[in-house]
Order: sequence, then structure tokens, then C-alpha cells
Amino acid sequence: MRIGVLNGPKLNLLGERDPQHYGTMTLSEIEELLVERAAEQGAELCFFQSDDEGAIVEWIQTQAMSVDAWLVNAGALTHTSVALRDALAASARPFVEVHLSNVFAREPFRHTSVFSDLAIGVIAGFRASSYTFGLEALTSHLREQTGV
Amino acid sequence: MRIGVLNGPKLNLLGERDPQHYGTMTLSEIEELLVERAAEQGAELCFFQSDDEGAIVEWIQTQAMSVDAWLVNAGALTHTSVALRDALAASARPFVEVHLSNVFAREPFRHTSVFSDLAIGVIAGFRASSYTFGLEALTSHLREQTGV
Amino acid sequence: MRIGVLNGPKLNLLGERDPQHYGTMTLSEIEELLVERAAEQGAELCFFQSDDEGAIVEWIQTQAMSVDAWLVNAGALTHTSVALRDALAASARPFVEVHLSNVFAREPFRHTSVFSDLAIGVIAGFRASSYTFGLEALTSHLREQTGV
Amino acid sequence: MRIGVLNGPKLNLLGERDPQHYGTMTLSEIEELLVERAAEQGAELCFFQSDDEGAIVEWIQTQAMSVDAWLVNAGALTHTSVALRDALAASARPFVEVHLSNVFAREPFRHTSVFSDLAIGVIAGFRASSYTFGLEALTSHLREQTGV
Amino acid sequence: MRIGVLNGPKLNLLGERDPQHYGTMTLSEIEELLVERAAEQGAELCFFQSDDEGAIVEWIQTQAMSVDAWLVNAGALTHTSVALRDALAASARPFVEVHLSNVFAREPFRHTSVFSDLAIGVIAGFRASSYTFGLEALTSHLREQTGV
Amino acid sequence: MRIGVLNGPKLNLLGERDPQHYGTMTLSEIEELLVERAAEQGAELCFFQSDDEGAIVEWIQTQAMSVDAWLVNAGALTHTSVALRDALAASARPFVEVHLSNVFAREPFRHTSVFSDLAIGVIAGFRASSYTFGLEALTSHLREQTGV
Amino acid sequence: MRIGVLNGPKLNLLGERDPQHYGTMTLSEIEELLVERAAEQGAELCFFQSDDEGAIVEWIQTQAMSVDAWLVNAGALTHTSVALRDALAASARPFVEVHLSNVFAREPFRHTSVFSDLAIGVIAGFRASSYTFGLEALTSHLREQTGV
Amino acid sequence: MRIGVLNGPKLNLLGERDPQHYGTMTLSEIEELLVERAAEQGAELCFFQSDDEGAIVEWIQTQAMSVDAWLVNAGALTHTSVALRDALAASARPFVEVHLSNVFAREPFRHTSVFSDLAIGVIAGFRASSYTFGLEALTSHLREQTGV
Amino acid sequence: MRIGVLNGPKLNLLGERDPQHYGTMTLSEIEELLVERAAEQGAELCFFQSDDEGAIVEWIQTQAMSVDAWLVNAGALTHTSVALRDALAASARPFVEVHLSNVFAREPFRHTSVFSDLAIGVIAGFRASSYTFGLEALTSHLREQTGV
Amino acid sequence: MRIGVLNGPKLNLLGERDPQHYGTMTLSEIEELLVERAAEQGAELCFFQSDDEGAIVEWIQTQAMSVDAWLVNAGALTHTSVALRDALAASARPFVEVHLSNVFAREPFRHTSVFSDLAIGVIAGFRASSYTFGLEALTSHLREQTGV
Amino acid sequence: MRIGVLNGPKLNLLGERDPQHYGTMTLSEIEELLVERAAEQGAELCFFQSDDEGAIVEWIQTQAMSVDAWLVNAGALTHTSVALRDALAASARPFVEVHLSNVFAREPFRHTSVFSDLAIGVIAGFRASSYTFGLEALTSHLREQTGV
Amino acid sequence: MRIGVLNGPKLNLLGERDPQHYGTMTLSEIEELLVERAAEQGAELCFFQSDDEGAIVEWIQTQAMSVDAWLVNAGALTHTSVALRDALAASARPFVEVHLSNVFAREPFRHTSVFSDLAIGVIAGFRASSYTFGLEALTSHLREQTGV
Repeated sequence: MRIGVLNGPKLNLLGERDPQHYGTMTLSEIEELLVERAAEQGAELCFFQSDDEGAIVEWIQTQAMSVDAWLVNAGALTHTSVALRDALAASARPFVEVHLSNVFAREPFRHTSVFSDLAIGVIAGFRASSYTFGLEALTSHLREQTGV
Repeated sequence: MRIGVLNGPKLNLLGERDPQHYGTMTLSEIEELLVERAAEQGAELCFFQSDDEGAIVEWIQTQAMSVDAWLVNAGALTHTSVALRDALAASARPFVEVHLSNVFAREPFRHTSVFSDLAIGVIAGFRASSYTFGLEALTSHLREQTGV
Repeated sequence: MRIGVLNGPKLNLLGERDPQHYGTMTLSEIEELLVERAAEQGAELCFFQSDDEGAIVEWIQTQAMSVDAWLVNAGALTHTSVALRDALAASARPFVEVHLSNVFAREPFRHTSVFSDLAIGVIAGFRASSYTFGLEALTSHLREQTGV
Repeated sequence: MRIGVLNGPKLNLLGERDPQHYGTMTLSEIEELLVERAAEQGAELCFFQSDDEGAIVEWIQTQAMSVDAWLVNAGALTHTSVALRDALAASARPFVEVHLSNVFAREPFRHTSVFSDLAIGVIAGFRASSYTFGLEALTSHLREQTGV
Repeated sequence: MRIGVLNGPKLNLLGERDPQHYGTMTLSEIEELLVERAAEQGAELCFFQSDDEGAIVEWIQTQAMSVDAWLVNAGALTHTSVALRDALAASARPFVEVHLSNVFAREPFRHTSVFSDLAIGVIAGFRASSYTFGLEALTSHLREQTGV
Repeated sequence: MRIGVLNGPKLNLLGERDPQHYGTMTLSEIEELLVERAAEQGAELCFFQSDDEGAIVEWIQTQAMSVDAWLVNAGALTHTSVALRDALAASARPFVEVHLSNVFAREPFRHTSVFSDLAIGVIAGFRASSYTFGLEALTSHLREQTGV
Repeated sequence: MRIGVLNGPKLNLLGERDPQHYGTMTLSEIEELLVERAAEQGAELCFFQSDDEGAIVEWIQTQAMSVDAWLVNAGALTHTSVALRDALAASARPFVEVHLSNVFAREPFRHTSVFSDLAIGVIAGFRASSYTFGLEALTSHLREQTGV
Repeated sequence: MRIGVLNGPKLNLLGERDPQHYGTMTLSEIEELLVERAAEQGAELCFFQSDDEGAIVEWIQTQAMSVDAWLVNAGALTHTSVALRDALAASARPFVEVHLSNVFAREPFRHTSVFSDLAIGVIAGFRASSYTFGLEALTSHLREQTGV
Repeated sequence: MRIGVLNGPKLNLLGERDPQHYGTMTLSEIEELLVERAAEQGAELCFFQSDDEGAIVEWIQTQAMSVDAWLVNAGALTHTSVALRDALAASARPFVEVHLSNVFAREPFRHTSVFSDLAIGVIAGFRASSYTFGLEALTSHLREQTGV
Repeated sequence: MRIGVLNGPKLNLLGERDPQHYGTMTLSEIEELLVERAAEQGAELCFFQSDDEGAIVEWIQTQAMSVDAWLVNAGALTHTSVALRDALAASARPFVEVHLSNVFAREPFRHTSVFSDLAIGVIAGFRASSYTFGLEALTSHLREQTGV
Repeated sequence: MRIGVLNGPKLNLLGERDPQHYGTMTLSEIEELLVERAAEQGAELCFFQSDDEGAIVEWIQTQAMSVDAWLVNAGALTHTSVALRDALAASARPFVEVHLSNVFAREPFRHTSVFSDLAIGVIAGFRASSYTFGLEALTSHLREQTGV
Repeated sequence: MRIGVLNGPKLNLLGERDPQHYGTMTLSEIEELLVERAAEQGAELCFFQSDDEGAIVEWIQTQAMSVDAWLVNAGALTHTSVALRDALAASARPFVEVHLSNVFAREPFRHTSVFSDLAIGVIAGFRASSYTFGLEALTSHLREQTGV
């Protein structure tokens, strides 16, 4: 089981800014935590972060053959990127959409996602735990699919 | 730590119908699972299910003093009940909103919740796991709040 | 063939008020008329009226196993109750939606029904006859389905 | 009692196409059935079918003096023809609007009718029975009006 | 100076119905009145009335070469017929849009015209006088254009 | 003169929570105050509070014959309950709509009431005084109607 | 027969600017023309022009008792002034709404009038002739009303 | 305690027109009544009525220093005047918004106020009593604020 | 392979008017060109042009059995005719929608087609070439379907 | 070079109220500052402030002949006054629209201006500097136009 | 004649995925086909594909001087990229917009293009043929423009 | 004082194209002008231009620590880039939004900015002067903040 963990614009700054909003963990710390949890669940992870829609779309295309699922926090691209939607759909891999903050309690333009209808599910508001819940959901889903 | 687990209309039928949609666990089985997990996290649970908006509002008022948080799957009332919103807000207790299915992949009227802006966060699409993630999120949140 | 006849808020007052609008027959008289017609068509009926969304949802859940179809006049709940929609859908029984008055000639909020897309069909404007037409439509539909 | 039965675009093809959608009866067979039912109710019928909005408006103007009511299935014109609305209104004759299929379960543009607010009532979804129910509703209405 | 006077659906019935709404003059009487007024202004008229959008479009195409302007009361087609708009525009002849009743005091769908932006001007609410004002406006306009 | 005082969901909690928002009076204290004022104005009151839409609709039906008017604070149901609208309309009794807080200064979904167009008038923002003003308005209205 | 001729903001500049848009006649010249035409029709006129909504409302109130009808070109206030609507309605005098240019061919916010539903009719696009048609329409209307 | 009573366009005509709609009291009579009531409550009043938005804005600016609160019936300006909103806000004085008629039962454009979110509260539908209730609400509010 | 080429309102005028907009070819010349191209591709054509929605619907019904596909330029009916949509759908024949001009660069009401979702594809903006591309697309499609 | 500086409702109060919002300069001080800057740029200024839409429209008409451009802060009228738009357009003088505060960070109804599409440009958010930037932009523009 | 062929996000994957949707040709095969066809028409091509909006905008700027026209399949950027619109407009080169699938038969957000109003025309739904038709349209257009 | 000057897509082409629209200065010339002006105001500048949303977001993150404010002309990204909004907000540096042209006089989609509510202010329409005004506004703002 191999899972691609995708982080969109500005998520490399986690932990440095707005700790009361996004928590005090850095993206590296979250990635370490995820690696640890993934190991427990028999999964391997690969990570990618970019501020660039094109780079993200390309990474999805490149990795699609070698991963079984995606864990996606697309940040601001969640609300605007049809290209990301198309890349996720074309990859034919299941994914879970996660958000650090409760996007439904923020500006109205953050209440809609252009790809959440394609996701297994959505988790928003639990900071680093949004990722660990998402990882667990993905590994369960994959085990269920493969009947393992 | 005591958490009120609230289930809205039709959720008493879980496991009996549409298993491919909602999973094969009954509400009792989910409640047992939650009791088990809560015990691990040092939390106690009380449960309520009703098809009736008025009964749910009343239960929230009655229990508000004796619980520390809510785990809420309001079912169809999620999209229409301002009364439920007011009851949750008036209880002055944090809550997590959960859904068995990915509501964002269903009819448009299921994409909006009249109270998700008041929640800590939202979890949708992972069947019984939506509840266990929600429970874990609540106990973390309460521990963080109380500095325990 | 057993059919559940469901009446929503305020329909217990039929015949007592606004006779020029809703006709002079009481709900009991309509029920008697329906029993008579049902007998002719080899069907049995059970009735329920409530002002309470929760009670109606519960009755549908309770009766679903013992009826073959529903005849539904949900009154004001027609336009707002997603919970009723979910209950009807979950019952996996065909239903006909009926209205005493022509709802399309009244206030705009009465022009939409939150469940008419799930119905076999809709009948509005013919007072008691809306029910008898609906009953006949249901028995025909059931006979056609079962090939009887 | 004389009733004008109006069928809009494409309804001459009934029975030949999409039988699972519109039933297996042809328009002629429906007309025969209606003539039979009308005889039982002491009513006489005249029929008109056209694909042409102008021809339909003209027929309504020509027949208005010699009929007591209309039974209208305007097909696709239901959703767009203000001219048909004006013709029905100007005829000063009551009418019932019928549809073979449940238009509320189809594309959104079929959920609105530009003249249903002028009708006695609306019946949708029961194939040929939509017509027979409509006929019965009209003869009842006329008898009630004339006190016969 | 030759002007084509166009009347849309149902306008052949003028004077026979709803006299309190549309006045007591028949379409023939209005046409006679217009002929008289046109003579005073040195103009010649040709008339057309049809319930049929296609026939109207065709008449405009046929007459375009032999008229200098149009006086248009398109009735219900005013609000829906893009084909009529295109025919008027393609004719490259100026036109005045007239209405017997004050369409702005009627149902909302009558407040918009699909071609009034192409007209010299609009006159609504003055019954037969809407036509005579329109005729006078057209002859003035034509004289002004030709510098006569 | 007998007036039914109706309180919707959560209003039994008045005075206990959010005193800066809703004032420090409990519902009982408001009711006592109203009884006192009613006595001065020669009116008798009966009270009902429920969190349940169905129970409220039923109470209105039961009491309609024995009261002359309603004083209504429907709380969250103000914005959603078509069933309550229908019950008030069917009771054929005048009513005044009151709110403790200025609903027009809160969330947009609180700016609309589904029944304020049927009321004599609306009073919002004056806490307990909203009720006493409403009572006075009703007794004036009734005296004016009956010419007393 | 006495008619108040009302001109809104900027109409005192007629003839001086944008002659290709509004014609070459000044407001005085239009007023002279109207006086002449009014004399022929046995009517007397009084004139008012102001850039000021308040002044216009006041003039209407002051003159209402001494005029039989209004000829109104409210200019830009047509699209925004509810106060002008209320003043016209309160005057209980019939009025015709006129515009020099075809407002329906200009910016979308000029397509709606906040009082045209209260007018006898609307005339737009014929420059000075919009006024003379309007005057004639008013005198006809008054003669018809008084049976003279 | 000094309160500025502001009346917008057309309110000087009270009592003279539409008595069935606005009651039979003139504005002077309402002002006398208010003076009397104010005296009982230890308050002094100053009055202003104008049809002119600019004059009203100016009066508010001039009086702001010498009054403690406003009682505002802005008439038609309620629905359109952002300038009035800004003037009220800039005055930093609490105000109550009153209406003689139930604006929520009239045309849709009267259902919104551009400043009700800034008011203490809103009272609509009780004719002269809307003012006396508003006055009482203001004096209570001021006493509460000043702890008197 | 037989293809029905359908032209809507006003397209008989091609080449005579607006050559800079629609090109200089007449409809006959386009038809000749199409016949030539069809011959090369082993296809036979039949043509129909009408200004009349009803006539077009009828022609589609009549020809449906004898053609394999449609090439459709419905002109102004593209944006309004649900009847045409239904006729094309009922014919169960694939079709290509073509436009001479780039409809997406014209008025907003021309940006939507009521039947393009049923088409194989859409071609707009290339004058006569829109037709020849459409023909080629249809013959390819048919060959692909039939495996020839 | 002569420039008319126009200030709308409430701007005479600048500096006295909300200094943290609008800065501490009074309108006179801003005007002095502008006179100074204008002198440096070889321009002369004339000033006008009014709370009254009508007075502003009139001043524009009166001054149009004697100024070369406008510097406009219309305050609340920015968002509603079509009359002001028409006056500015009719003056045929270029203008710059300025705002003291960043209107795009305030209530939604302040995000639109009914005349900014006619302006050279818009400056918002820099308090007194919004005016000095605007003045400089106007003098540059005029010099560029006149080739000086 | 030199034409730039632009392909947006994910189009490098053509032929590998969803062959039933997008056909079995790879992007290279389409490019080869286009080169062949271009040669026949005396045109030269240059190609660019990128998942990155910025890279595409830059390529357009770089190539604009050396190409005569664009053939554009912007994929998902069609519906969102104002930057791409601006780049195409700034290049001052004609272009044709093509899509492999019929975008009008897919999700609503794919029905709008932010630049189709600037195109010569639009072709959607014919897989590789959308490109060859587009190429042919461009070479015709260029020949027509240059009179060759 | 150090200010980051950010230019979005296509702004590297300034001066080369559309000089009548954007002026004749190149981006380098504007940058030189800004450097000169900044020197006078004791500020230092750093510049960045990119067509790429991702590159811009990254540059903001990289530079945020070393600049005191931003001068932002995001070009087409102004209207769509939530990622840019988030980057600006996360940088916790004040910024001014500038545009060369008056965006409010262009296509409707250019009237909204996804980040202007976060800016100190907005300047649009003055070509190179939009930048120099913005620079001056920023240096004033910074001096005011730091009390220098």
C-alpha cells in the first residue's frame, strides 16, 4: 500500500505562522507523524508540496502509476482548480480531502470544493489530526477494496 | 469527560438498509464501538436518536449541563433545522459534525449544513469511522482545552 | 396489496375550515371513501395523520415492512422536509404525491416539493378526488409490477 | 358537456417509441379509451394534436365557443409557450394539465409550467391514466359548476 | 412610405373578449383607424396577424423588401421569440413595439421583451392609441431619416 | 378577550443563558409580567412553549376556537416552518410576531419570516418589552375590531 | 382638465447636450409644444423640473389636489426612487410614464422602473413625441373616466 | 433625555389619505401624543419631517450632539438610502426603526431596510402605536444604558 | 448512409444579408457543397428549412426512420425550443449542432443551447465550413458505430 | 486648468468623527491641502459639499461649463445615485472617483459604484491622500489631453 | 503560415486513459496527424503542452511574434484562466478553441469558457477531428485575411 | 523601509503592446521610476514578475521576512487566485492593490478582486501613476505605523 500525500500552496509554512489557527506542527512534523502512523498500518508514503497548480497536476500524473491512493490538502486550490479535479479523476485512484481548519466556518468562497464530490470523504477542522484520520480512512478503504 | 452522541432521523435503521451505502453496522454496533473507544480515551458517552426535531432540541437542552461536548449526525435535519443550530449554540458545548456518506457527492441540497460553521470540524464519508474519528477529535479537543 | 395513507400537518381539520378551498369532506369521510374504493381494487389501507415531522418519519419506518406503497399528502412538509424525503426513499416503496388544492396556483414556496422526483407521479387540485386518483394509480402500478 | 382534448408536439408518436417511458398505448388508443370513459360520464370529446404552437393557439380560439373545458397535454410547449397560456386564459374555459411521465423527476426545465397556475389541477406520471383521471376531474368539475 | 403592421397570437380576437382589459375595438376596426391615420400622414399599410411564430418570421422575410418600417404587437411572442428578434433585425427596417395593455403592470414574465432593445421605442398601455402613437412615431422617424 | 401566547424552540431557557443577548428575565417571569399587563387590559392569556413544530401546530389547532388572537415568538421556526404558517392562517385569528433580539442584525437566514406577511405587525429587538408591546397591540386591535 | 408635467434630474438641460440622443428641442420648447397641444385638447398644464427627489415629492403633494393627472419623466429617479413611487400612488391621480430615449436599449439598470406598474402606460424612445403622445393618452383617459 | 423624532417622505400627509391603511391620526396628532408620553417618561422630543434625503441627513448631523437617541420612520427612504444609514451610524446614537404599516405584508422591495441591522429594534404594523412603542423602547434603553 | 440536414428560421436568407457576418454563400450553395462532400464520403442527404418550430418537429418525426443522423443548424430555435430537443431525442439518431457565427461572441442568450448536451458535438463560427466539418464528423461517427 | 471638487453626504463631518477610520483632517484642511497642491500643478479648484443629491446634480450642471474636470467623493451616493451618474456623464468632463476608506473592505453594498465605469480611475483607502493622488491624476490627464 | 498548437493540463495523457471518452490516439499521434494535414495546407506548426498556466501564458508571449494563429485546447484552464484569456488577447493572433469531448454534455462548470468570445469559433466533441477541423478553419481564415 | 513590487501575468509586456490602453512605459521604465521615487522617500524596492501563480506565491513566502509591505499588480490573477490571497494574508505585511487600467470600466469579471478587502487601498486607471501613488501610499502608511 503506497499513498501519495499532496499539499497545496502555502502549506510548507505550517507551524511557522498562525499557530492558533493551524496548530504548532510544521509540515515536516506532520509528515513524520504520518510516516509513523503509515508504518503501523502497513503503508508507505510519498510526499509533495507545491504552490504551483501545474507542478501539482504533473506530480499526480507522474505518481499515479506508483500509488494506490491520495491524501489531498489542496489549500486554496481546493476552491478553484478544475485542472486539479481533472488530474485526480484521471489518476483513477481514490482520495480523501483534508483541511487543517474548518473551512465551513471561514469565508463563503471556502465552503465549496471543486472536487469533493469525487472524494471518498472530507475531513476539515482538526489540524494535524485531519491528516491522520484521512490516512487511516484511506488504508481502511484500500484494505476493504482488496479484501485484505 | 462526557460526550453526548446525537443521531437524527432514520439513523436507527443503520445496517438494515442500503448496506453498500451506509455500511453493515447497526446503530447499536456503532454505539458499542464508540463506548469501547471512549473508554480507551477516558471518556463516557450518552446516546440519543430521534426522528423528531423537537425531541432532539429538548434532549440537547436537558443534557447540556451534564456533557462536555457533542458528536452530531443530524441526518436530514443537517440541511434545514435552524432550531437544532440554536440548540447547539445555546448549549455552549463544542461539537463535531459527522456524516456516514460523503454528502458532497449527493444531491445539492445536502452540500449545505445550517450549523457546520459552529462546529470544531466536519467529517463525511467514512461510515462508522466518521464517528470514531469524530470521537477522537472531541477528546483531543477537550484535553487541549482543559490542558490535561 | 396494502397501502399506507399518510396525511401531514393540519389535514385532520379537513372539511371544518375553508370548505371553498379544500372541499366539504372531512378526513374521516375521505378515509371511508378510500377504504371503499380500495376494497373494489382488492387493496387494504392503513392511515396516519400527524402534525409532527418526527412522528411521520417514524410511522413510515415502522410500517415500511407491512405496506406495498404509500399515498402521501404531506401538506406543508412537502416543501421543507428532507427527513420525510429520506424516510420515503429508505422505505423502498413506491408512492404517489397528492394535494387537495392546486399548489401551483398558490405562493411560490408551494411550487416545489422536496420529494416529488422520487414519486411515481403527482396529483394536485382535485380535492378528495386527488386521493382517489392516487389510490387507483397505486393499485394499477402495483398490479403492473407484480404482473397480476 | 363537450371537452376539447389537446396534445402538443410529438404526442402523435405515443406507443411507438420509448414504451418503457410513456407506455405502450398509441394516441389513438388513448383517444378511444377517453371516448369510452367520456360516454360513461355523459361527455363528448373533440381531439387535436399538433407540433405547431400557432396551430394549437388557433384551434383553441376556434373551438372555445363549442367546448366546456380542456384536457391539455402540451408536451414541450408546457415549459415555454406564453402564447398557449394566453390562448387558454382567453378561452375562459376550465382546464386540467396532464403529463404522461412524472415531469418533476426529469430535467429541471421540465419542472415549471407556464400555465399550471391557471389550471384546475395538474396530474403527472401515470401514462394513459393521467388522461382518464383528468377527464374524470373535468366532468366532476363541470357538474359541480352547473349544479347538475 | 409603406409600413408593415404585425399582430401576434390571439390579437385577431380583439374586441370580442376582455373589453375592459383590451378595449372594445376589434382588430379590423384598429386596422381601419390606422389606414385612415396613415393616409393623413402619407403612408400606406399592409397587415398581418398570425398565431404562428414561423408564419410571422416568414411574412417579415417576404415583406422586408417592400416596407420601410414595422409596427409590431407580437403579443405573447414578445417575451419568448428569439426567432422573431432575428427576423426583425435581419429585415434592417426600423420598428416600434406596441402593447394594448400596460405589460409592466402584469405578470413578471411580461416585463421583458426579447427585442425591445432593437426598437426605436416602446409604447404600452393605451389600447388602440398605442397603435396610432406608434404609427405616428414611425412616420416621423422615416421622414426624419429621409430628410423629407 | 383571550390571547394565546406561543413560544417556540429553546425559549424555555430564557434568562438562564446569554443574558446580555436575551435579557435576564425567565420565560416564567415574562409570562407573569404579561398576565399582569393583560389583566390591566381586560385580557386573559394561555401559554404554550415547545421545541416541537408538530406540538405547536397541534396546540394552535386545539386552542383556535377558544382564543381571539395569538402572540407568537416562534424562535428558529420563524424562518423555516411552512406548517406553522398554515396553522396560523387556518386558525383565522389575528396575531403579532415578536422577537427578543433584533433578528435583522443577525445572520441573513434570520431576516426572513415565513409568516410575517400574515401578521398584524412585527416587533423585534426589545427583549421582554417585545412581548408587552405585542400584547398591547393585540388588545388594541381586538377592541378596534369589535368596536369596544 | 389640469395636468401636472413633471421632469426629473438633468431634464432642464434638454436640447443643449447630446442632441443626437435626446433631440434638439429644449425643455422650454417641449413645454411650449405641450401647452399648444393641451389647448387643442381642452387641458391646462403646470410644469415642474427639479434635480431633487425631495422637491419633486413635495411638489406632487402640493399639486395633487389641483391636478387631474400627471405626465412623468422622472429621468434617473425612475430606476431608484421608492419615495417618488409612494408620492405618485398617494396622489391618487393617474399618470403616464415617458422617456425621451428608448431606455430598454441602454444599460440594464435603466430597464426597470420602480413605478411603471402604477402607470396607465409607458412611452419610451420618441424624444419630444413621447411627451405629446403621453399628453394625448392622459386627456383621452380623463375624458373616458369622466364620461365626457 | 432628549429624543429626535424623524419622519421621511410623505409622512406629513398622515391622516389625510389612506386612513384605512395608515390610521386617522395626523402627524401633528401623533407628535402631540408622543410629547405627552415622553413627558410621562421624563423625555423631551424634537421633530423633523422632510421629503428630502439631503435635508434629513443634514438634520441628523445638526441634532446629533443635542439628542440621546432617534425614533426613525424613514418611509420610502428605508429601503434605498445608504446616506441615511451612514448619517445614523455617524451620529453614534441608538435608534428604533418604526413603520405605520406592516411592511412585510407589502411589495417585496419594502421587506428590506438598509439600516435595520444598526437599530436597537424594529416595530412595524401598529400605526400610531408603532411610534409610542418605539418611544417607550428608547427611553427604557437609555435608562438601562445610563443605569438610571 | 443518409443524413438529414435541418435549417431553422431565417437560414433561407443566407448569402443575401449580412455577408460579412454569415459569409456570401446562399443556403442552396451550401447545400450543393454539402451534396458534393457527402458524395465523396458515400453519404446521401435530404434537406429541410423552415421558420416554423412545428414544421421542423414534424419533419424530424417523418424523416427519422429514413435517416441515420442529423446535421442541425436550428438558428434562433437553438436557444428556446424544448419541442425541438424532444423531437431530436425521440428520433434516436445522432446529430451534430452547427452555427455559422460564433454564438459565444454574441448576446448572452445565444450562449446556451437547449439540446447541445444531446449532440455528438458542437461547431460554431466557421460559416459554411461549420456545415462541412459537421458532415464529416457525422460520417466518421456513423462509420465508427457500424464498424465500417 | 480648473477642477471641481465634489463631496457628498456627511463628508463635511470629516475629522470630527471616526478619526481612526477617516483620519484626523477636517474637510477644510483637506481642501487647503488640495489648494496648495493644485497651485503647484497650475490648477485652480472650486469646492462643493452637500448631503443632497439634487443639490449636487444641480451644482454639476451649473459648474460644468467652467471646470475642466471633477474630483468626486460622492460618499453614500456612490452606490445608489443614477442621477449623479447621469449628471457626470452629461457634463462631458473627465473625473476621478475617490474614497477615504477602502470601500472594498466594508459592507458588500459599498463594493459597487454606479459610475466608476465612466471615471478615468478609482482611488480608495488612503484618506486625505486619496484626494491628493486624485488631483495629481487629473492634472496629468488634462495636460496629456491638451498636449501641454 | 505558422500556427501554434497549445494543449493544456493533462492532455499529454491522451490515448493512455479513458480511450472511450477521448479516443485512442496519443497526443503525439494527433500532432503527427496535424503536421501531415498542415503540410497539405501549406502551414507549419509548433507545439506546446503544459499543466502549468504560467508556462502556457509565457509560451504564448514568446511565440506570439513568430506565429500567425493559435489552435487552443486549454483543457481545464478553459473554464477558469483569465490570465490565458489576457495572453491570447494580447497576442493579437486569431485562434480556434477545440475540445476532444462535448463539454456541453458534461458538468455545468465545463459549459462556460472564459475566452470563447474572443475565438474565431469553437469545436467540441469530435476527438482528434476537433483538432483537424480547427486547423483547417485556421488556414482558411488566414488565407481569407491575407487575400491569398 | 523595503517594499516588494509584484507584477502578475503579462505585465512584462508593458509598453510593447496596447500603448493606448496601458501607456508607453515598459515595466523596466516603471521600475526605474519607482526606484527613483522610493529613494526620495527613503525606501528600497525589490521586484518580481511572473506569469505563474505558483512562482508568485513562492516569492511572497520567500520575501515576506525581508520586506515591510507589498505593491501588488496581480493582473488577471486579481480576479481568480485564492492562493495569492492566502499568500498575501499569511505574509502579514500591508499591501496596496494597483491596476494600470480602470478595471471597473472593463468586463464584469474584472470588477471583483479576491483580495482587495485585505488591502490598505486600491488604485486603478492611472497607468504608471497607479504605481507611484501606491508606492507613496505605502511609505506614508509605514511611517505612520512606525511613528516615524
